[in-house]
Amino acid sequence: MPLPLPVLPEGLDPAWLPPEAFRSLGSRRTLIRWSGRRGSAPLVETVHDEVADAVARFGGRVVRDPEPGDGIPYDLVLELTGASGDEGFVCGREDGTTTTVTASGQRGLLYGLFHVARLGEDAFRGEWAPEVLQPAVAVRMLDHWDNVAVHPVMGQVERGYAGGSLFWADGRARGELLGRVRAYGRLLAACGINAVAVNNVNVHEAEAHLLTDRIAEVAEISRALGRYGIRTHLSVTFAAPMVLGGLPSADPLDEAVQAWWAEATERVYKAIPGFGGYVVKADSEGQPGPFAYGRSHADGANMLAAALAPYNGTVHWRAFVYNHRQDWRDRATDRARAAYDHFVPLDGHFAPNVVLQVKHGPMDFQVREPVSPLIGAMPRTRLAVEVQATQEYTGQQRHVCWLGPMWSEVLRFRPEAGSSVGELAAHGGGLVAVSNVGDDPFWTGHPLAQANLYTFGRLAWQPGADPGRLLDEWIGLTFPDASQRLVDGLRAVLDGSWRTYEKYTAPLGVGWMVQPGHHYGPSVDGYEYSPWGTYHFADRDGIGVDRSVATGTGYAGQYAKPWAGVYESPDTCPDELLLFFHHVSYDHVLHSGKTVIQHIYDTHFEGVAEVERAREVWASLAGLMDPARHARVAERFEEQLRSAREWRDQINSYFLRKSGVGDAHGRPIY
Amino acid sequence: MPLPLPVLPEGLDPAWLPPEAFRSLGSRRTLIRWSGRRGSAPLVETVHDEVADAVARFGGRVVRDPEPGDGIPYDLVLELTGASGDEGFVCGREDGTTTTVTASGQRGLLYGLFHVARLGEDAFRGEWAPEVLQPAVAVRMLDHWDNVAVHPVMGQVERGYAGGSLFWADGRARGELLGRVRAYGRLLAACGINAVAVNNVNVHEAEAHLLTDRIAEVAEISRALGRYGIRTHLSVTFAAPMVLGGLPSADPLDEAVQAWWAEATERVYKAIPGFGGYVVKADSEGQPGPFAYGRSHADGANMLAAALAPYNGTVHWRAFVYNHRQDWRDRATDRARAAYDHFVPLDGHFAPNVVLQVKHGPMDFQVREPVSPLIGAMPRTRLAVEVQATQEYTGQQRHVCWLGPMWSEVLRFRPEAGSSVGELAAHGGGLVAVSNVGDDPFWTGHPLAQANLYTFGRLAWQPGADPGRLLDEWIGLTFPDASQRLVDGLRAVLDGSWRTYEKYTAPLGVGWMVQPGHHYGPSVDGYEYSPWGTYHFADRDGIGVDRSVATGTGYAGQYAKPWAGVYESPDTCPDELLLFFHHVSYDHVLHSGKTVIQHIYDTHFEGVAEVERAREVWASLAGLMDPARHARVAERFEEQLRSAREWRDQINSYFLRKSGVGDAHGRPIY
Repeated sequence: MPLPLPVLPEGLDPAWLPPEAFRSLGSRRTLIRWSGRRGSAPLVETVHDEVADAVARFGGRVVRDPEPGDGIPYDLVLELTGASGDEGFVCGREDGTTTTVTASGQRGLLYGLFHVARLGEDAFRGEWAPEVLQPAVAVRMLDHWDNVAVHPVMGQVERGYAGGSLFWADGRARGELLGRVRAYGRLLAACGINAVAVNNVNVHEAEAHLLTDRIAEVAEISRALGRYGIRTHLSVTFAAPMVLGGLPSADPLDEAVQAWWAEATERVYKAIPGFGGYVVKADSEGQPGPFAYGRSHADGANMLAAALAPYNGTVHWRAFVYNHRQDWRDRATDRARAAYDHFVPLDGHFAPNVVLQVKHGPMDFQVREPVSPLIGAMPRTRLAVEVQATQEYTGQQRHVCWLGPMWSEVLRFRPEAGSSVGELAAHGGGLVAVSNVGDDPFWTGHPLAQANLYTFGRLAWQPGADPGRLLDEWIGLTFPDASQRLVDGLRAVLDGSWRTYEKYTAPLGVGWMVQPGHHYGPSVDGYEYSPWGTYHFADRDGIGVDRSVATGTGYAGQYAKPWAGVYESPDTCPDELLLFFHHVSYDHVLHSGKTVIQHIYDTHFEGVAEVERAREVWASLAGLMDPARHARVAERFEEQLRSAREWRDQINSYFLRKSGVGDAHGRPIY
Repeated sequence: MPLPLPVLPEGLDPAWLPPEAFRSLGSRRTLIRWSGRRGSAPLVETVHDEVADAVARFGGRVVRDPEPGDGIPYDLVLELTGASGDEGFVCGREDGTTTTVTASGQRGLLYGLFHVARLGEDAFRGEWAPEVLQPAVAVRMLDHWDNVAVHPVMGQVERGYAGGSLFWADGRARGELLGRVRAYGRLLAACGINAVAVNNVNVHEAEAHLLTDRIAEVAEISRALGRYGIRTHLSVTFAAPMVLGGLPSADPLDEAVQAWWAEATERVYKAIPGFGGYVVKADSEGQPGPFAYGRSHADGANMLAAALAPYNGTVHWRAFVYNHRQDWRDRATDRARAAYDHFVPLDGHFAPNVVLQVKHGPMDFQVREPVSPLIGAMPRTRLAVEVQATQEYTGQQRHVCWLGPMWSEVLRFRPEAGSSVGELAAHGGGLVAVSNVGDDPFWTGHPLAQANLYTFGRLAWQPGADPGRLLDEWIGLTFPDASQRLVDGLRAVLDGSWRTYEKYTAPLGVGWMVQPGHHYGPSVDGYEYSPWGTYHFADRDGIGVDRSVATGTGYAGQYAKPWAGVYESPDTCPDELLLFFHHVSYDHVLHSGKTVIQHIYDTHFEGVAEVERAREVWASLAGLMDPARHARVAERFEEQLRSAREWRDQINSYFLRKSGVGDAHGRPIY
């Protein structure tokens, strides 16, 4: 019998699911049991196919629903006991002989399988009490900013650094190439992701039609992803009733508009029964929205929610709303305030199946931002927190920058005494990452950027997890049988890479200072006189944005206690966010004891030195892994080092020329 | 008999040849005589068609080569006496009754016709002795930076601000639309231009083939232009023998390469008998060239010259050669030096049919540059001086910027005691402008940018001409029957527009400070840390590039006396070039008596005020011209004013923040 499993398409990197990840399981005897069988449970087939593939490879055995008393001593029993939507499972080894995974829902069974794979030999050792494992966050989602048609400026994947789209090629869904999509779904399920939005939140002309006459293509992708329990979501344009339906308006309070959405949504669910819902970027950066009709974001979102409610669909309504036509001369306007100012007054007005999707920081995925004050400020609204796996501002997958520690800091942050960000997101909302994946053979361009995708999925499952442990998991799976030297080397290269990146780029939380448009490489004044609201206000005396209540834009006052107070004063504001909250002189002394200007010089020299060291470590790992992977990373390290030096020298030179203060250590600045 | 003349294609602006430009001539009796008729003289047909069109419109009469003694008293006799290549003619009115134009070559007859049209009624008044009119410069050329295929970054016309290409559409020569090209040739002939290069000096893949398998398309264009005596030139890639001929090398000393060019050129001349020659950008900004084979520019140019020599064709070899991968940290390298350093050692090495085409300034068409020291430094080399009619750095045809005064300053400049730049260009070389024309209905995007094209042509004919007089000519032709108020208004808007533009953009000759890539709008540091070699070195104390011999890059020493001395010291360097040659403190006092910093503030406020006044003047001219033309300019004035204010505020804010010196008049700076 040919293996029914999706064999990884030729030339694709297996990422964290190389065959060896299933060696322990594949060499054992496994029973798959579906007690109380009713309805259909296609994921049981997937689980079976996975195990069958593993045992074929490693010499074990798999049995399904045997007659009672077959007498075989199983090493592993995977049992589905019901038809619930639960994603959790119970795993134990009470008798010291048979490991059991029991789930009441088919997704739970699948996650249980991958859990056993992650445990490796440990799954079959010793004796341990049953443990309940279940995701803390219900929706663990990736948003793909993929265009169907290649956009003349933004390319096929907006802010994509891993080739073209995984879903769309030559102007349509990949069709026979969907094997790659299925393999992708498998990787996602193995790290716990359960939802994918398959197109860009900036919905262009061709992509608008996915909702209606091109829904069959979405359905194709959805079937491929559904093999691994992934729900499909679609980004839609708020103007759809006009551009697709020919209506004269898209006013959310217009009954004809409501009826149009109801009918369109009915057709979507006919095509895709398990469809997840809509993602909407409205009244933001030029996208249409309810403002055109004098309606609120709640009016807009609730209208879509009403269309989705009969099918238990969800609206992900993005809170990334601000004035991108700001006058840089006007220091009273503060982009950081915008999401809070727009949305907090609407708390309690959103329908139950609306999820407000909030970027983790108030700006736009800079390497360092405070947590958005909107998170925690809308207790009567479902909240999804959005992070960016694609490295738009963190090296664009040419630089190593493992974002686990940053995301973990965000998720552990407590907006006030009480829940952490992770707990708030878990409470009826979700965690969302902008995908870093494309049709690149390594999936993510930079092979080590796979660790970001994996870590995101696992943090979404368990936001309180120690990111270092997740990194070890990723290393263990991706590099089976790695020597300790390789493990140590990978840790050395990845562990501190986010802080290294922070060091050699924009200092002390001020952000930006990137080349406009494409956002790669330094340009200190690149956004300083622009309409985008992203300023540093550096002059010959000092730098930073005064966002205090007392003398600035008042943004600090959007936080609850204790943070409003902490951020209000430069005396209590954490160093790493000082310039985000305060304009200070170059000789201001940080808590670290250094002046701002010397901190800038020191961190930039340190950051480059750290890249140099990481590059050497990487070089020393040659021969310990697949040569293609080693070479790809080695080549990217050359570019990272070049770029990091450029950052160092431009930032340092800019501030030396402006401040006139030399480096205390006399290092070269130009 | 239907008029054989090219009627202006529907919807196209007649520019400086509205029907009324021929009213005086068209209402007279004209004899066209071709004495000593031999060979063919197609331009006599063109002259006849022009006059026939005019008399049909205005009631005069035209007669060709009448039998002796027909007894008609002619008002105008246009006589071709030979078949020379001369472009001059003699025009007089000795008997006070008949105006005569006599030319020994057919081009001269055509230019004589346009001369009579320019004179208007004055051509038929009084009694005056015959005057010889002939161009000072033999080659008066426009280079079109047009791509056949639309370039993904640069668009169809590189640095084009007037729509798509006039020559190429939908990936091929315009074919049946060549009526527009013929009309274009007519406009060019009427201002004296006699050569056009029909494609971009950056020769991309599709365009490379124009030389060989697509030469028929060039021939089509050439025939359309030839109707008005315009020669066609082609930009070619130095790598042609490889990319088109499949040879393993393009080494200019390789006999196979030489043979390839000889054969290719033979085929070109078979297709286009009057072909002008090749334009080459080699070893510059990534274009291939002889350096790859260890050969010199002279080797490269002479190889092409040998292929062209049998047909009297010319190589225009561009001297725009510099390192565009410069390290901004290295202040010893100076892009301004590059052309001189590369080419002066080659003086005397170029073949007689090579023309070295030198940009008028050492950098790249900034609003203010010194004259290139290469001009005058190669007495044994034919020289063409290149200016830029397309307003890449001077407002991109959204701003009014009449460049006549700038070009005139350049042409009158005397590199040393002796010849002016105009005279040097006249001496066996030519004047070349990068075209500002596209398929826009007004030809040049901004209707007033037509004045730049016209002025260039007339200055190329007579480099010493007073540009103000040429502007009056242009106004007289373009706006026939203009009231004095309109004439005064047009002069007020155009006359000082170059200096106005200079005022509100980069100060004191420092240049650049533009947005990288597209070059529109301010970005003070946009090129400051880039590899392009275009720096200002502003710090908190001062600004400018030290190009002195004593303490700087030595560039000033490339000039002959007296300029080497004049530029060497800030005491003698003209204010408008101070920051090009010297790094000075913000409180340095200019010859004007102002400090550098106060000069920056003052000129930027003045420049914007001047735009505001010009905009008002323009508004007052509504009703005095074609409404479409008025509206187009009025709309562009809105953008010019917005942009000028942006320049003012960004430049002033940048320098206030850096210098800490406030404006003496307390005006708003941010």
